[in-house]
Amino acid sequence: MIEARTTLPTWPTNAWYVACTPGEIVGKPLGRQICGERMVFYRKGNGDAVALENFCPHRGAPLSLGFVRDDLLVCGYHGLAMGCKGQSESMPGQKVKGFPPIRSFPVIERYGFIWVWPGDAELASREKLHHLEWGESDEWAYGGGLYHIKCDYRLMIDNLMDLTHETYVHSSSIGQKEIDEAPVTTRVVGDEIHTSRMMNGVKAPPFWQMALRGAGLPAEATVDRWQICRFSLPSHVMIEVGVALEGHGGCGADKAKKASSIVVDFITPETETSHWYFWGMARQFAIHDDALTRQIREGQGKIFSEDLDMLEQQQDNLIRYPERRLLKLNIDAGGVRSRMMIERAIAAERGEVLE
Amino acid sequence: MIEARTTLPTWPTNAWYVACTPGEIVGKPLGRQICGERMVFYRKGNGDAVALENFCPHRGAPLSLGFVRDDLLVCGYHGLAMGCKGQSESMPGQKVKGFPPIRSFPVIERYGFIWVWPGDAELASREKLHHLEWGESDEWAYGGGLYHIKCDYRLMIDNLMDLTHETYVHSSSIGQKEIDEAPVTTRVVGDEIHTSRMMNGVKAPPFWQMALRGAGLPAEATVDRWQICRFSLPSHVMIEVGVALEGHGGCGADKAKKASSIVVDFITPETETSHWYFWGMARQFAIHDDALTRQIREGQGKIFSEDLDMLEQQQDNLIRYPERRLLKLNIDAGGVRSRMMIERAIAAERGEVLE
Amino acid sequence: MIEARTTLPTWPTNAWYVACTPGEIVGKPLGRQICGERMVFYRKGNGDAVALENFCPHRGAPLSLGFVRDDLLVCGYHGLAMGCKGQSESMPGQKVKGFPPIRSFPVIERYGFIWVWPGDAELASREKLHHLEWGESDEWAYGGGLYHIKCDYRLMIDNLMDLTHETYVHSSSIGQKEIDEAPVTTRVVGDEIHTSRMMNGVKAPPFWQMALRGAGLPAEATVDRWQICRFSLPSHVMIEVGVALEGHGGCGADKAKKASSIVVDFITPETETSHWYFWGMARQFAIHDDALTRQIREGQGKIFSEDLDMLEQQQDNLIRYPERRLLKLNIDAGGVRSRMMIERAIAAERGEVLE
Repeated sequence: MIEARTTLPTWPTNAWYVACTPGEIVGKPLGRQICGERMVFYRKGNGDAVALENFCPHRGAPLSLGFVRDDLLVCGYHGLAMGCKGQSESMPGQKVKGFPPIRSFPVIERYGFIWVWPGDAELASREKLHHLEWGESDEWAYGGGLYHIKCDYRLMIDNLMDLTHETYVHSSSIGQKEIDEAPVTTRVVGDEIHTSRMMNGVKAPPFWQMALRGAGLPAEATVDRWQICRFSLPSHVMIEVGVALEGHGGCGADKAKKASSIVVDFITPETETSHWYFWGMARQFAIHDDALTRQIREGQGKIFSEDLDMLEQQQDNLIRYPERRLLKLNIDAGGVRSRMMIERAIAAERGEVLE
Repeated sequence: MIEARTTLPTWPTNAWYVACTPGEIVGKPLGRQICGERMVFYRKGNGDAVALENFCPHRGAPLSLGFVRDDLLVCGYHGLAMGCKGQSESMPGQKVKGFPPIRSFPVIERYGFIWVWPGDAELASREKLHHLEWGESDEWAYGGGLYHIKCDYRLMIDNLMDLTHETYVHSSSIGQKEIDEAPVTTRVVGDEIHTSRMMNGVKAPPFWQMALRGAGLPAEATVDRWQICRFSLPSHVMIEVGVALEGHGGCGADKAKKASSIVVDFITPETETSHWYFWGMARQFAIHDDALTRQIREGQGKIFSEDLDMLEQQQDNLIRYPERRLLKLNIDAGGVRSRMMIERAIAAERGEVLE
Repeated sequence: MIEARTTLPTWPTNAWYVACTPGEIVGKPLGRQICGERMVFYRKGNGDAVALENFCPHRGAPLSLGFVRDDLLVCGYHGLAMGCKGQSESMPGQKVKGFPPIRSFPVIERYGFIWVWPGDAELASREKLHHLEWGESDEWAYGGGLYHIKCDYRLMIDNLMDLTHETYVHSSSIGQKEIDEAPVTTRVVGDEIHTSRMMNGVKAPPFWQMALRGAGLPAEATVDRWQICRFSLPSHVMIEVGVALEGHGGCGADKAKKASSIVVDFITPETETSHWYFWGMARQFAIHDDALTRQIREGQGKIFSEDLDMLEQQQDNLIRYPERRLLKLNIDAGGVRSRMMIERAIAAERGEVLE
């Protein structure tokens, strides 16, 4: 059901969101709604990615059904050619100077993703995209995927900022009883929220046994395991995870003694009750082992798919019982603080300051 | 589409409704919306069935995605363990005493069904579940099934309290022209509404020929056929049906001269425009013939599926033309009186008395 | 989603619309919503087609699930038999005289279609159905089909009154670059809107090469191509199209020198945002070549299916951005003027006069 939006957005708009992967705009434009805006993405001849409103100023047709010609996005209905600033450039037999422009959105490509800035273009700058070491260093390997999930993007942030759920939702892969026995610590670190949990002297669960084998370490060894969830605006969650042979320093252990990686989560709102979930894993072990990359991606994809049902039915429950207050426990502190950071960012965009 | 409810319910809540069959809660909990309430059903170690709100007080997750451990229903998201009264019992690393409870619903298991009381638990008692002879006597065999139907549950009551429609909807199985030629009688009998129709000296239609054969009687014989539809609150319709060899007393004939059974209909509202339809047939002939039980269930399932399209499109029509008044003919008296009984029960729950 | 209608209709009601093809009412009634009215169509023994409201006055059941008996439409639920004027005729065991009638709609069958008049029956007359030469002359062959499209019927009129889109949407069949290079002329001709485009000295695109071959002419020849789109109320678009060997007079060329046909488009509103699209092609060449008829229909069906995505996503965009004004270019003049004619007809039905 398509509806004109009436409520205030529940996300910051002056921020970089992951819009798509480069593979999604090969050969033809991509239509995707992001933060409530219908956008179309395409690539110019020089390789630059472009984002426009997916709305032809002529008759409202979706530009994403068009094609790219000489760096212009040509509407597939009647041939109006749009430039990368949203201006009408040409149309057979027409003078297009007076045509109303459509919005263009700042776009940059970096770390293997196309990023879009849905808000005020004046405020966008490359510097505001935070640094992702794993995204441009040769010492990391990366694999990932994309899910469309029918729930408020903040429920996914809650999910990722409290990994207690691994014990329950992902019991056969990365869950283990020691997770919810280990205390969790949440704190503000610069402009990030960190939630940490250390589990020392445990057996690795199946997923991490696979990783240990991939790193050339004994899968059955007793290990020290760690999880450090790092939220940053607008809705990114990077989770440092790993296992090291027991007593070698945990996450600080020498590379040769550990298998460690970063769970990468870019969570891009589509509507108030749906989002695009870009998930992946960046790792520093066996980085040239493509078969392992595929194996991890497959495993991770399966694990994350286990969350879908839970999140979508949770969303249904919250819509059905809108008046109910949820609990905010210590394990929820990561999500709660992340949401507060989001609320402050939204308020700031409106010129308000939250205490 | 999930929506917060705004209108008054169209069903009594202080009553026993069929929630599910025992087979539906084997091994894992079952989530089901009943009378507008999202419920989760599970079984404790001692065999007792339990019904709670399907809403974890922690973060609103559906408890039906969890599991049962030591008689507690453990949320599959973060491990909050709920007791059978809706109280929070434990959660790793948490003190749960102050957690808000969720509703628990009175449940009993009887006659081969799990029954739930969606209203005021104080008012629930086993005695208020009416007696069903066929449900606990060894002299009866039973087979049945469940359909989810997108229409107001009262349209199904109308359907079952006026079997005239058999001639039209079910012409190839139980319909016959004598049905709508035979007069129908409706009356109040205690706390039930009865609608009866007798068809003497007729040929049995295909379904009843099968039943006659099953009962060891000649399928081609001339028979006296009867239908006695019995409505009782909140929404049960038991229909005594059968054929007896002509002139042996109809429904009062000796067992050896008839094939008789009870069409069992438990109609449980889900929303204002959808319901769960538990249908079945209890019979007193050839009760140890399991193949016949399967054959009857299959035939009955096919017959009842013929009603679905009619009822769902009727619902569409009523929504499209909300201002139109429907006719209340003598054949509709059973449904009309049943609805009046429902209206009075709803009013009584609000402290009102309808004339 | 079924909803009671609250807004003013966006179509004239006192007009003949194509309701269905004769093949759709063979053997059983057809339920179809037209101009917001739920209708049921059936055929009497003498062959006359009939249209009634698809709403049984007894309990609101859809009459389209019933059957025809002795020229009466018998409700498939409880057997109320309706006459062709919408009156209740009989029902087993009932006196039906006082039953409220349902609406009947004027119907005529002509040109290979069943036509219905959704408005004031008093105003309907056969004379108001405009003449379609190709529909009753032996010198024409016809083939066509039906699509259900989820967009305002006027977007389809726009589509057909501006064939510029062929270059883009149908580039592999009937599109060619000369289309949007050729100027377009729009004018009022009697009670029609005509939009014409002539392309002289061009190569025929694939579809027309097939037509040339079918007409016994050289597919590779240089041709003069023409398109004359003719809109008439309420929502019919007949498009004279063809190619003639170059220099023989274009659309006025001798039959032996051209392949010409009429693209037939009857566009029948269902709801404000959906319609029934009856499309086809009438041709004057190789009219006894049934294989060619099939081939053309297949090709045309594929071509028109290319419009569906575009139109439905355009509708989504217009709903999402209701405040945006669309451009009205010279190429849009055909659609713009057709919509004005529609607006005037709607206003006239309300007793208003638009300037």
